[in-house]
Amino acid sequence: MSAGGAPPDDPLAIVCGAGNMPYRVADAVIGRGRRVVLFALVGWADPAQVERYRHHWARFGQLGHLSRLARQEGCRDVVFIGAVTRPAITQLRFDLTTLMVLPRIIKAFAGGDDHLLTRVSRIIEGLGFRLVGAHEVAPEILVPAGQLGRHAPTERDRADIAVGQALLAATGVFDIGQAVVVAANRVIAVEAAEGTDGMLARIAQLRSDGILKLPARSGVLVKAPKPAQDRRFDLPSVGARTVEAAVAAGLAGIAVEARGAVTADLNEMVGQADAAGLFVVGVPASEPTRGQP
Amino acid sequence: MSAGGAPPDDPLAIVCGAGNMPYRVADAVIGRGRRVVLFALVGWADPAQVERYRHHWARFGQLGHLSRLARQEGCRDVVFIGAVTRPAITQLRFDLTTLMVLPRIIKAFAGGDDHLLTRVSRIIEGLGFRLVGAHEVAPEILVPAGQLGRHAPTERDRADIAVGQALLAATGVFDIGQAVVVAANRVIAVEAAEGTDGMLARIAQLRSDGILKLPARSGVLVKAPKPAQDRRFDLPSVGARTVEAAVAAGLAGIAVEARGAVTADLNEMVGQADAAGLFVVGVPASEPTRGQP
Repeated sequence: MSAGGAPPDDPLAIVCGAGNMPYRVADAVIGRGRRVVLFALVGWADPAQVERYRHHWARFGQLGHLSRLARQEGCRDVVFIGAVTRPAITQLRFDLTTLMVLPRIIKAFAGGDDHLLTRVSRIIEGLGFRLVGAHEVAPEILVPAGQLGRHAPTERDRADIAVGQALLAATGVFDIGQAVVVAANRVIAVEAAEGTDGMLARIAQLRSDGILKLPARSGVLVKAPKPAQDRRFDLPSVGARTVEAAVAAGLAGIAVEARGAVTADLNEMVGQADAAGLFVVGVPASEPTRGQP
Repeated sequence: MSAGGAPPDDPLAIVCGAGNMPYRVADAVIGRGRRVVLFALVGWADPAQVERYRHHWARFGQLGHLSRLARQEGCRDVVFIGAVTRPAITQLRFDLTTLMVLPRIIKAFAGGDDHLLTRVSRIIEGLGFRLVGAHEVAPEILVPAGQLGRHAPTERDRADIAVGQALLAATGVFDIGQAVVVAANRVIAVEAAEGTDGMLARIAQLRSDGILKLPARSGVLVKAPKPAQDRRFDLPSVGARTVEAAVAAGLAGIAVEARGAVTADLNEMVGQADAAGLFVVGVPASEPTRGQP
């Protein structure tokens, strides 16, 4: 999977959820000389973008259909990329292959997100494919290290980032969100089922209601992958929408674990942050010993 | 401070925030034969209830005024009770005594809630008073152990409670909220600046929007004090409003650390939970070794 050397002969199967990320990955892989086949999830993938690539449509739950088509296409490697909100089990359309692994899927649904993803990946591998991380075939989607725009975090912001990283390290084993907001040394929001945008909207609301009293433009959004996360799935992602939500929440900036989060539009994101006066930084992963403040 | 023996001669100073708790505490102390003097915080304490007791009005930040009056009344012990949302520093009215300790207060405001409370308590003690926990003078406000209503948690609920307790133990050192919601082994919300009611309202919204897909009446609200918390301040509190919010959030029940949370209206709360089909339990504190799941 290294970026150097001749590209593999087999086309890469890209199972596409929502957002722009699948097409950014597809373009990066094509740019390296490898063919791709998109498996677009009905209800999540964007038809207008999917059309530009060799593709098939599939429904969540149609594993047999999907693996048959992927085999016909000569695919051996599979990438899952793009947001897929956890579907209700009643929304799934099951085909025969899926029904055969249904007990394992139900078990997967009974656990947290990590359990779900780990178990789904084992099922995929049981069908004869190799599960590959999007960032392995398209490393350009990883957020790089360092100050990424015009604005830099203050010492105060750096202290808040350290608190956020330590909290994320401590809660990672609980398989909850991958983001927190820290302001003036105080954790003011922890992400769980509401997602990052939902958490930032809450801060905007708490500030405008006067429940959360903070100086203007203060507080940092900190995002990092869970410590034991299978990075082939669901690395935290940031983008222009994250900047918009952070601006609305009155924050000073965004800190992302360098090479531990992905973005479909780094330049757009950083440009927007520059214009709004927010900093964006890629920070080194927190040390295991930094798990406590 | 034991409930037995002759009551102390000096009247108890009760600094009153919002809610019914201050008057429940005052009645319990009077019931034990001790006099009370209420110091009602303007903007938080309820004038209609304050009127029923010997009292003075004070503003947050008027430490000199408050300590002079308390000394005139012959008070030696001070209890702080009732919700006080963290005031903006610009809202405070400072008197001379407060100005003298202002550097320490500003320092207190720079930290999280625990820092604030710990530092305020040192300031109070520096003025010659003894800070006493409301639950020490009125142990009847503590939530007792065991099943408190007609409904019992299932095995599934008990597993969710254990996850919630473990998460609260792990995040306690970060001085964030004192409540989480766990459903089917998955942490779906973590409280920080929004408070318990805000967190429960979010779950109601996520469920009604279809973002959070859970079986009807599932999930547990788990509340516990922070592990290293100064219990003389700010034990988590529950009441009828908590039950209302938990019902609206579609939860199965409420688990509170036994003797680690307070309530002004246990009977009303339990009656309401019984009627709505929710369980309410007081659970033993999680073992330190249970800090990780």
